[in-house]
Amino acid sequence: MKVTELVQAKARAARGAAAVLALTPTRVRNEAIAQMARALEEKTEGLLEVNRADLERARAAGHPRAFLDRLTLTETRVAGMAAGLREVAALPDPVGTVAETWCRPNGLEISRVRVPLGVIGFIYESRPNVTADAAGLCVKSGNAVILRGGSEAIESNTMIAAVLAKALQKAGAPADAIQFVETTDREAVAAMLGMSELIDLVIPRGGEAFVRWVSERSRVPVLKHDRGVVHVFVDASANQAMASAIVVNAKAQRPSVCNALETLLVDAAVAREFLPAVGARLAEAGVEVRGCPRTRALLPAATPAAERDWDEEYLDLVLAVRVVDGLDEAIAHIRRHGTGLAEAIVTNDLAAARRFTREVDAAAVLVNASTRLVDGNQFGMGAEMGISTSRVHARGPVGVQALTTTKFVVTGDGQLRD
Amino acid sequence: MKVTELVQAKARAARGAAAVLALTPTRVRNEAIAQMARALEEKTEGLLEVNRADLERARAAGHPRAFLDRLTLTETRVAGMAAGLREVAALPDPVGTVAETWCRPNGLEISRVRVPLGVIGFIYESRPNVTADAAGLCVKSGNAVILRGGSEAIESNTMIAAVLAKALQKAGAPADAIQFVETTDREAVAAMLGMSELIDLVIPRGGEAFVRWVSERSRVPVLKHDRGVVHVFVDASANQAMASAIVVNAKAQRPSVCNALETLLVDAAVAREFLPAVGARLAEAGVEVRGCPRTRALLPAATPAAERDWDEEYLDLVLAVRVVDGLDEAIAHIRRHGTGLAEAIVTNDLAAARRFTREVDAAAVLVNASTRLVDGNQFGMGAEMGISTSRVHARGPVGVQALTTTKFVVTGDGQLRD
Repeated sequence: MKVTELVQAKARAARGAAAVLALTPTRVRNEAIAQMARALEEKTEGLLEVNRADLERARAAGHPRAFLDRLTLTETRVAGMAAGLREVAALPDPVGTVAETWCRPNGLEISRVRVPLGVIGFIYESRPNVTADAAGLCVKSGNAVILRGGSEAIESNTMIAAVLAKALQKAGAPADAIQFVETTDREAVAAMLGMSELIDLVIPRGGEAFVRWVSERSRVPVLKHDRGVVHVFVDASANQAMASAIVVNAKAQRPSVCNALETLLVDAAVAREFLPAVGARLAEAGVEVRGCPRTRALLPAATPAAERDWDEEYLDLVLAVRVVDGLDEAIAHIRRHGTGLAEAIVTNDLAAARRFTREVDAAAVLVNASTRLVDGNQFGMGAEMGISTSRVHARGPVGVQALTTTKFVVTGDGQLRD
Repeated sequence: MKVTELVQAKARAARGAAAVLALTPTRVRNEAIAQMARALEEKTEGLLEVNRADLERARAAGHPRAFLDRLTLTETRVAGMAAGLREVAALPDPVGTVAETWCRPNGLEISRVRVPLGVIGFIYESRPNVTADAAGLCVKSGNAVILRGGSEAIESNTMIAAVLAKALQKAGAPADAIQFVETTDREAVAAMLGMSELIDLVIPRGGEAFVRWVSERSRVPVLKHDRGVVHVFVDASANQAMASAIVVNAKAQRPSVCNALETLLVDAAVAREFLPAVGARLAEAGVEVRGCPRTRALLPAATPAAERDWDEEYLDLVLAVRVVDGLDEAIAHIRRHGTGLAEAIVTNDLAAARRFTREVDAAAVLVNASTRLVDGNQFGMGAEMGISTSRVHARGPVGVQALTTTKFVVTGDGQLRD
């Protein structure tokens, strides 16, 4: 069978299952996710075995240690996947909730009710736990999902998806609601992107070039996840101990992810006091600083920042630092260089906080908190499908609510149009 | 200047204006819309004059009378446009409203706040009043708009847009927030569809083929407005007088629009009583009935319905009628032939109403009300940009709220990620 036909068969099966799943009661979907968790635990041994095959191939292919680590399944990690699924099962059901409701002068009652989107196409990188998270969020929200995981984890992901799909049936939910595309070439992705009749939303997760490739050719609506050039602005009124802690946490707690800090902006009024203090803590954490001239005057160990550093997503222990003349210059810098993912201010000045949250346009704007907190789990939304930097449909961490659409339910007693 | 460059210049101007408009207070945007209304009234004479030029061209081109009527501006219609704008100004401001808010165990406060989408590309047919409606809704929601109206109304629309843009300035809002593309060839539309960096959402209004053409080539997200094969199901328990009134209103009040009824489904249990009664009223209203065999047994004047009649969007005084064996068959028919715009049941049976609203998947599902009420104005949302049959972003009548996105505003006192 050709790749396109194969993907189409899966998409058709998903479409059929979606129609059934959309009408299953909350109880059945929650029980299905509980069965998925149980099934993963029961199959731990088999999962670790196929995972070893993925790992051997990846090692032979010369992937770096950090990559191999993300790919590795252990008993603890499988247990973690199961626990994640149980957390999703425990979330409130978004399906059937009423987003708003009002009454018209003629007595017509209008409600906007959440319903599942339908079929989600999820294209992601290699971490096997993502497979379970995504399947759990989709089933929870009454959607079927077509999973297409990275080639390096193909054996682990194929087995995880098969185990999860089988578990659905035990709870009386359609197994076809979880589809996995084993073909790892791009043709399979290209086929998915053309199926606007069968797939309602595509969520690509991966590098910048890949996400752009998907966005440019998709006829299915895409929820994008762009680069994160993330800023923290330390205002003149900031509690400096708090600011230091936030900067170090945002930069160094896990530098390889999109919500990690990339550029620190410091108000000139406090730079002389703040920069040496935070500089010492950053050095301790192994962070290389690339500074503007005013930064380097205060942190002589910093290397000079080039113009392109302000647009760099390092995803590494490197931090660009710039001294700015107050809030206006900070906002202007962020407007020019930010990518709209997450931006933070550290301040004790209420007017500055209000201006920053209003004037900075990003999926998440933070006051006195680490940008690393911009995450579905940290926001209390359960796992996440990703963090959307799209403006339409959903922006920020994508949880179960973002996987729904709404329908208007209109009730009357014979109302007509004049 | 080439068409693409021309459109790009307008899109850039709109992008700049959008950034300014997004931060203007509610008061300024409302005042701007009031100025727009006043300016239209003041320029009535000039508008009627350029409209006469459009009308002469349309008459010479042999357009039918209904088309010419839609194209015509009169003093009353210009006053109606101004009144429509004042209604939009009086709506609550969606910008800055909090969609939801919650607090995390670590004290982090999370709000989802509505902000403007940015730049809207609106591509529409010929009625000049649509220009004012769309501009009003976009300004109200803090968005810039690039208008591209149908060629037949080009002179009227060009002047309306110019008058509206100039009025913005009087209120201290950026005139560039209303852009009008005078080039009527498709190249201008194609150019808009490629500008994903400058335009955030495209809303096409027009025939089925045109909307498909837009959807297939757009790299900007599209809010679609598909065909409306709209059903009314008359359940066995229906109040038959109410059912007749709803059927006649839904079909004949204005048959040329998407929310008009196309197929009537009648429960066999009441067909013998109901069909002759409604048939007489439909005949009075000049409606041609195309019926299934069971319908024709009761309405001998009906012509036989062919299989393709169940998928027909007549947009005319023609109605397909089918007798079905109860709710299940009605829902199955709608699932197979419905286009997801508006579907109605007339019933006095609560269980039937609940099943219908839950199981029928459409932008709007109605109980005991005419499908003609599925409309932004009738819903109390002010004017509308159209009725979306897309599943992502917004579904159903598109008012000011659908022209916003949200951002997460996160406030803490030093929270970090562990």
